[in-house]
Amino acid sequence: MDEQFRNRLSEHAEAVTRFLDKAISPDEIRQGEISRPAQLIAAMRYATLNGGKRLRPFVTIESAALFGVSEAAAMPTAAALECIHCYSLVHDDLPAMDDDDLRRGKPTVHRKWDEATAILAGDSLLTFAFDLVTAPCDGVDETVRCKLASHLARAAGPGGMAGGQMLDLQAEDGDPGMKEVLTLQSMKTGALIRFAAEAGAILGKASPGEQEILSRYGRLAGQAFQLADDILDVTATTEQMGKKTGKDGEAGKGTLVSLLGLDEARRRLDGLVEEAVAILEPFGDRSNVLKATARFFAGRDS
Amino acid sequence: MDEQFRNRLSEHAEAVTRFLDKAISPDEIRQGEISRPAQLIAAMRYATLNGGKRLRPFVTIESAALFGVSEAAAMPTAAALECIHCYSLVHDDLPAMDDDDLRRGKPTVHRKWDEATAILAGDSLLTFAFDLVTAPCDGVDETVRCKLASHLARAAGPGGMAGGQMLDLQAEDGDPGMKEVLTLQSMKTGALIRFAAEAGAILGKASPGEQEILSRYGRLAGQAFQLADDILDVTATTEQMGKKTGKDGEAGKGTLVSLLGLDEARRRLDGLVEEAVAILEPFGDRSNVLKATARFFAGRDS
Repeated sequence: MDEQFRNRLSEHAEAVTRFLDKAISPDEIRQGEISRPAQLIAAMRYATLNGGKRLRPFVTIESAALFGVSEAAAMPTAAALECIHCYSLVHDDLPAMDDDDLRRGKPTVHRKWDEATAILAGDSLLTFAFDLVTAPCDGVDETVRCKLASHLARAAGPGGMAGGQMLDLQAEDGDPGMKEVLTLQSMKTGALIRFAAEAGAILGKASPGEQEILSRYGRLAGQAFQLADDILDVTATTEQMGKKTGKDGEAGKGTLVSLLGLDEARRRLDGLVEEAVAILEPFGDRSNVLKATARFFAGRDS
Repeated sequence: MDEQFRNRLSEHAEAVTRFLDKAISPDEIRQGEISRPAQLIAAMRYATLNGGKRLRPFVTIESAALFGVSEAAAMPTAAALECIHCYSLVHDDLPAMDDDDLRRGKPTVHRKWDEATAILAGDSLLTFAFDLVTAPCDGVDETVRCKLASHLARAAGPGGMAGGQMLDLQAEDGDPGMKEVLTLQSMKTGALIRFAAEAGAILGKASPGEQEILSRYGRLAGQAFQLADDILDVTATTEQMGKKTGKDGEAGKGTLVSLLGLDEARRRLDGLVEEAVAILEPFGDRSNVLKATARFFAGRDS
């Protein structure tokens, strides 16, 4: 299963990259008739075509497949999720936020160009995500596209990812407890991963019961993803991660690892994966890839 | 007409403000179960509930009325336009962009709080606009909401407003000609005003021919709006405008006034208004308010 899973992961990742490569181009972004904003589009491409693993798109494509939706029909939503994820990284890296110079071993957007370009490239990727989700797409009617855009806005906005980032910045000054950390994480990283799973059910016009299962699966997978990240921040080296580790401790940020200890955090992670797998039982073997995804999230080694 | 028009303008503005006051509140933005991002919501409110004239929402509400759409049905789209406009001001005011300390005589968001809060408040308003447009609304079906979101994304994104801001920042270093200035302005300020007019036709499920008329009207009104602004930048005092004037000249920015001279710019402005009024003739007296709007845009004294 493991090699098969990794092959599948990289195949989808390549398809997402091909789609973004084509979508984020001067020919596609054509409203400006004369001088297109070349530097802006270059920065958007730099921020997205960067060898990312496309984990969120993977969850959307695979949860859509569970309901018989093709990769092609799921792709605009999957790519939109990646645009939102990448915009959040570009803005989070800014000096006023996390102040990072490197992302995946390369200069961050504001280092490569300047802060204004990074702000506008982030704004543009965020806006472009809604362009992708709402644009005409074979097999995805307006009702579905409208619902996708609505859920995406909730997941990414002040009640979701953007709000979580705000709470995260403020948490550096405080001493947050268990409840605060869980809320913050469910907003900052959880909301988008949860939407990634829900999106497949929306695309597949699944029943409310099935949508609820995917939503709960997405929530658990997101928690596992974040907890694994917090554990790696303590246990892995900067070299293994390709980004700075030990940052949470340095910043005095509360994580579940600092609150529970490493052993208890690992036990909790196992429990989350078990629960995510169990919740998919109604779908039987058809959900094997999503089950493997939850295990993969928990065991990420890079 | 003039007083009647101004009353109508302020009535709609008050309705938009009431709507935003209710929509951007901790109770409505409720995903975070425990600690809501209070400072983020405060900054979003500060950036939007600021006594703005709500000109873009006015165009949407009035163009929707042309097709028999109620103010209530047009309001989420109108308010979304204002959120996009306000987000762009918050980000444009940042030190890395135009570096402004004051907006309507009050400290800009990054001055009132900090840069991180301003970046996230802008991101949140941008995302929230798509939440507003796509959320269920009496009398506006999913097909219409999907189309509104799609057109809004095009107007605000890299091929529209955000791309225009990028070109504007880069123009400070160059010596742009007539075509470059017109393209830049059609993206930076024109795209959103054009959408404001189109949105009414989309909400009213107008015929393609009628949508085209509103689109052309919106383009002309947007050009008039921008040209009047450029003229005022040269002729008005800082006190009259409530913001710094003469900035374009200081920044070495090309505008139609610097390229054509003040007299020719004024003649051109008159021509744009005449054309905008003429294009609405098929609608007869029903379009009187939109005609007055074009004249108002050209003669803004504040």
